[in-house]
Amino acid sequence: MAMENFKQFLFALSAAVTVGFVSIIFVLRWVFYFKEGLAWDGGLAEFNWHPVLIVTGFIFMQGIAIVVYRLPWTWKCSKSMMKFIHAGLNILAFIFAAISLVAVFDFHNSQKIPNMYSLHSWVGLAAVLLYSLQLVLGVCIYLIPITPTYLRAAFMPLHIYSGLFIFSSVIATALMGITEKLIFGLKDPSYKDSPPEATFVNVLGVLIVIFGGIILWIATRPSWKRPSEQVLRSLPTNGGGSVGTEVSQHTDPKDNGDTRRRSGKLEDSGQVN
Amino acid sequence: MAMENFKQFLFALSAAVTVGFVSIIFVLRWVFYFKEGLAWDGGLAEFNWHPVLIVTGFIFMQGIAIVVYRLPWTWKCSKSMMKFIHAGLNILAFIFAAISLVAVFDFHNSQKIPNMYSLHSWVGLAAVLLYSLQLVLGVCIYLIPITPTYLRAAFMPLHIYSGLFIFSSVIATALMGITEKLIFGLKDPSYKDSPPEATFVNVLGVLIVIFGGIILWIATRPSWKRPSEQVLRSLPTNGGGSVGTEVSQHTDPKDNGDTRRRSGKLEDSGQVN
Repeated sequence: MAMENFKQFLFALSAAVTVGFVSIIFVLRWVFYFKEGLAWDGGLAEFNWHPVLIVTGFIFMQGIAIVVYRLPWTWKCSKSMMKFIHAGLNILAFIFAAISLVAVFDFHNSQKIPNMYSLHSWVGLAAVLLYSLQLVLGVCIYLIPITPTYLRAAFMPLHIYSGLFIFSSVIATALMGITEKLIFGLKDPSYKDSPPEATFVNVLGVLIVIFGGIILWIATRPSWKRPSEQVLRSLPTNGGGSVGTEVSQHTDPKDNGDTRRRSGKLEDSGQVN
Repeated sequence: MAMENFKQFLFALSAAVTVGFVSIIFVLRWVFYFKEGLAWDGGLAEFNWHPVLIVTGFIFMQGIAIVVYRLPWTWKCSKSMMKFIHAGLNILAFIFAAISLVAVFDFHNSQKIPNMYSLHSWVGLAAVLLYSLQLVLGVCIYLIPITPTYLRAAFMPLHIYSGLFIFSSVIATALMGITEKLIFGLKDPSYKDSPPEATFVNVLGVLIVIFGGIILWIATRPSWKRPSEQVLRSLPTNGGGSVGTEVSQHTDPKDNGDTRRRSGKLEDSGQVN
């Protein structure tokens, strides 16, 4: 099935994946080259799991989970399969975030550093708690088949908004975390003297912001939404090209524009089937 | 003219204004009660202009500027007048941000502290530069009457997205700034020991996040958009209640739902007239 502005979508998606991967490489290089590496020993190497798991799981994986419905190659898959992938990626991201919290609390406790004193920890814990609430509500409302359709429709704008809000809060929290770690971790030369580690990790922070910006752009383009199930079912499955297999040949936005226009109701509330 | 879910809108708007005002009171109390007050002396009292002007101008005023088209009381005003108010508030917010930058550079220079070494300064300066670009492009495309309509329509999704992205980046930058200032400014007891100032300013950070969250919620509800000029012109100006004057009497969403349904085209590209 053709997607409006397919080339722009492909460019945005490639940019997001590239910037995301580079961010992961950056956090690994930070930890292994500039810092103490990874271990589970109550020391700084245990703390290092915190940024690694956050960037890999809570930022990259959550970002991909957010845009997974947008991939036109998945439009031939059933909606329920895509929901399981969306939920699965988010649950995986949550597990990464939970382990990263254990790492930092364990590190603080063995080093006699207080927990939960900083704005970073306040906003971060709130984001993790809201994320788990979002997961539980999402599974109950959209994966358990008994929830009535009107409830699914009514909750969808809130589900989308809070997903993007939590994702943005996680990125803001990561920026505070980077700030804290560069101030506490760099002594002689300190953060102020801009040693190579400081500049390198500042770039990581900028990469995370760009990754977040691209994910939010993809997630908020109405024309890149997965078409409704009625539209997908109404498409010819032979002759005109089967659904989802000839994406690259149909990039003209006028090509099958009719199939993309949805009622204002669906546009407002998201798709609920 | 009636607005869908008017009571919810009123609640969200009141919450945003209240939380915004409380944030301003918090930053003033931080500066005057816990810190050195305000002055232009190259010392810490000059630095204090930085958080005060950012919270007042770059966060609160920018937030109000973003949602100003949503206020149903303004729907009787001409679109061009609302555009001038939107632009004017944003220009005022930019001036506040610019002075706040002068304050911090001037403070750094007189104290021999390096400039632009931190992630806070990188993301913050990028946000100010993008904001000025957004202002110039916004004025050229939407206020200068010669720009062709197709260009206004094509640019609108980008204008909306980048406005919200810059606003979110400013809030993320403020959270990094609070983190830096509490680490550098608190010694014996330090940030880790949670003195009253630390807890108080952490709350300020949380208030700023909540303010941002409410503004983004209001700005992204499709049913709260200012109706298109065609719709506003087609409304009766007597008998059925004149436009904009009887908002509180027409809160039933079914009341004049027909006037609110716009074409998919307008929904996607925003309103350009």
